[in-house]
Amino acid sequence: MAQTHPASTTTPLYLTGNKAGLREFLDKFDVFLFDCDGVLWSGDHCFPGTVETLELLRKNGKQVVFVTNNSTKSRADYRKKLEGLGIPSNVEEIFSSSYSSSIYISRILQLPSNKRKVYVIGESGIEQELRTENVPFIGGTDPAYRRDVEPEDYKRIAAGDPTLLDPEVGVVLVGLDFHLNYLKLALAYHYVKRGAIFLATNIDSTLPNSGTLFPGAGSMSAPLIMMLGQDPVALGKPSQAMMDAIEGKFKFDRSRACMVGDRANTDIRFGLEGNLGGTLGVLTGVSSKEDFVDGPVRPLAYLDKLSDLLALEQ
Amino acid sequence: MAQTHPASTTTPLYLTGNKAGLREFLDKFDVFLFDCDGVLWSGDHCFPGTVETLELLRKNGKQVVFVTNNSTKSRADYRKKLEGLGIPSNVEEIFSSSYSSSIYISRILQLPSNKRKVYVIGESGIEQELRTENVPFIGGTDPAYRRDVEPEDYKRIAAGDPTLLDPEVGVVLVGLDFHLNYLKLALAYHYVKRGAIFLATNIDSTLPNSGTLFPGAGSMSAPLIMMLGQDPVALGKPSQAMMDAIEGKFKFDRSRACMVGDRANTDIRFGLEGNLGGTLGVLTGVSSKEDFVDGPVRPLAYLDKLSDLLALEQ
Repeated sequence: MAQTHPASTTTPLYLTGNKAGLREFLDKFDVFLFDCDGVLWSGDHCFPGTVETLELLRKNGKQVVFVTNNSTKSRADYRKKLEGLGIPSNVEEIFSSSYSSSIYISRILQLPSNKRKVYVIGESGIEQELRTENVPFIGGTDPAYRRDVEPEDYKRIAAGDPTLLDPEVGVVLVGLDFHLNYLKLALAYHYVKRGAIFLATNIDSTLPNSGTLFPGAGSMSAPLIMMLGQDPVALGKPSQAMMDAIEGKFKFDRSRACMVGDRANTDIRFGLEGNLGGTLGVLTGVSSKEDFVDGPVRPLAYLDKLSDLLALEQ
Repeated sequence: MAQTHPASTTTPLYLTGNKAGLREFLDKFDVFLFDCDGVLWSGDHCFPGTVETLELLRKNGKQVVFVTNNSTKSRADYRKKLEGLGIPSNVEEIFSSSYSSSIYISRILQLPSNKRKVYVIGESGIEQELRTENVPFIGGTDPAYRRDVEPEDYKRIAAGDPTLLDPEVGVVLVGLDFHLNYLKLALAYHYVKRGAIFLATNIDSTLPNSGTLFPGAGSMSAPLIMMLGQDPVALGKPSQAMMDAIEGKFKFDRSRACMVGDRANTDIRFGLEGNLGGTLGVLTGVSSKEDFVDGPVRPLAYLDKLSDLLALEQ
């Protein structure tokens, strides 16, 4: 989608050090959606002032939502991660792609009663969120799927053996799986060929870790996309399915919501395409000042760093 | 490559039952390159007349070459497969994508002396062919790579730990691997990011088995293509790197060679783009008469089935 939102062609406001501008900006919004890595912290390192800035927002009556494409963690896991970084939060403030996927399956997809099971490629975070929404699933971390493909498997799959290909599976959900294997891919392919809906928690091809990149959830979907000639419905940023799910949960007024992020292409685009009232870029992550000011996808405003908002308290 | 060879816009000759036409066609060629599945056999079932047709060609002094994208088997393995189907052959008549890849690495790539190692994603067929060409390799079927990724691995890979990322690796070769895992993908990605050449034995997304489809070698490359934003050099059909390797070995006159296959898009295209003197389609596999007669890639001639050549003996 190279779609350009009207707002993205104007020059963003630079708000660092502009106390009046900051005040005016903040007054426009009741809800702040936060991308996390690159905004609140980087890797295992919390940025100075993150905690105080979140406190400032809450103190001013703003709803804070942490939006993450990380599908390996449940919201409860993610809250622990925030806590480990010294950031107070509660589970209700967290919106992960695993949760978004679960909500999409349970509340938006209208699955026939005999096709309600989800075949999961992914880790326990997805399973926990599916359980929360009472969505039945198979696969995931089940050790029965962590094995080599056997000659018999080809025949059983070809024959549609119901002990290997569960006839009740109506959805294939692919997230980041550190135990991806040939059998899991073969099963996912055959479920979709038999009519299951193909979903992905998110399609980020890479996952940042230790200052470099590793295979991301999108890399788990890539073989299936190639085999099927079909893209999954993606439930993470910048997919609007995630925005719909967030709205479904928080019932906010989009015109009074602002997306905060470090990446023009995903975070800012997510907010623009979601018709939020505002988008706020920060320069502590991937995108540069040039990206925000001259790029094809521009935020309404930007800051050097999130904690520049603390100028309001001085 | 949507490139159309001049020969592909003419109407192909239909040679079944046309004895004079068959004679004339055969006389044009000294070498016949055969796609196998869909031409000589289907699955585990050898077509009637295959053995006799190959005998007829050999008796008439024709060189027969079996060309297969199957990378899991070495040529010796493949000869056993042919034998199991009742088809006499010798290893020198077989050209597999694993062999093609080994020749490409050993004879065509000019690797610096400190970057001669190949990191393999694949099975023993590739390893056997690399050994034949004295190409040093790591990975492949080594059990050390058949394990889960550990937290330490991220740090070791990020730091370029030479006990995990061998500094002598100059090539990543990806073929069909029934033991694909997260660690193997992470290592392949980092080798290419560090400058290794990205090769694939072949890029068929699927692998036929038991009358249906399973993940093919291309599905092993798919996550890396997505992460790297880069396609591998593919060594199987229809890549001309494979044709060059075949020519390098058999030293044939391309104008006196004919590619025989059931798929317009891969087999026939492979022969046309390789400027072979002829291409021969058969209707016992994927492509239909309409594909051959009206499609964008047309053979010089086609037969209902390969054994229609036996009319020459009657």
